[in-house]
Amino acid sequence: MSRRSDCPISNFLDIVGDKWSLLVLRDLMFFGKHSFSELQGSEEKVATNILSSRLENLEKEGLVQKQVNPSDKRKKVYSLTSKGKDMLPILLEMMVWSSKYAPETNAPKDFLDRAINDRERLINDVFKRLDD
Amino acid sequence: MSRRSDCPISNFLDIVGDKWSLLVLRDLMFFGKHSFSELQGSEEKVATNILSSRLENLEKEGLVQKQVNPSDKRKKVYSLTSKGKDMLPILLEMMVWSSKYAPETNAPKDFLDRAINDRERLINDVFKRLDD
Repeated sequence: MSRRSDCPISNFLDIVGDKWSLLVLRDLMFFGKHSFSELQGSEEKVATNILSSRLENLEKEGLVQKQVNPSDKRKKVYSLTSKGKDMLPILLEMMVWSSKYAPETNAPKDFLDRAINDRERLINDVFKRLDD
Repeated sequence: MSRRSDCPISNFLDIVGDKWSLLVLRDLMFFGKHSFSELQGSEEKVATNILSSRLENLEKEGLVQKQVNPSDKRKKVYSLTSKGKDMLPILLEMMVWSSKYAPETNAPKDFLDRAINDRERLINDVFKRLDD
């Protein structure tokens, strides 16, 4: 999509300003998903063609990389690039906001407490886990 | 829109997961806009019907309040509720991310520096300005 303005928020939204892209980032970030079928299995029930097009766009924008599965060369695995991992603080703030205003959502309480009170170390811990 | 899952990120996206809603929040948060015509004047050129529907939804979700303009009772003014103001950290993180990966975007450098290094006080300063 072409850029509509020089605004950094607008720029962000031009890249991932649709629900599905951010849910894909969430699944790669927090739920250890890597394959297309794992990503498709999320409870929000994304349609196959939408998931394909969002993954393709995220790859094109450099947030996600697609590689051959080392244990089954017929299959592909998806993972976050540094640019994708750096969306973590945005996702954390979304979680904090939702947990304040929609307490029925299900983020683990200790994770949320850390997102508020131990933010930098939580970010480092998530990054470390992603690199393993 | 109905909730698709109990995930807090998904919940956030169900409420403001489209580009225009977040741009409206940005304009109310950072650019001192209050009237429909001011909001419509943003460089991203939102269509009238889209702006109306997004404002209506933001009001319904409790992020924005519509009031009679005290200086011209025929007109309405829009402002953020506490729930809307609390989206500030999310917008800040979007700005920080974009400025890292799309340096051609135009967030003021000192504002960005504060978003990274002086975050809590910047948030308080923006809140104070919004309350004036």
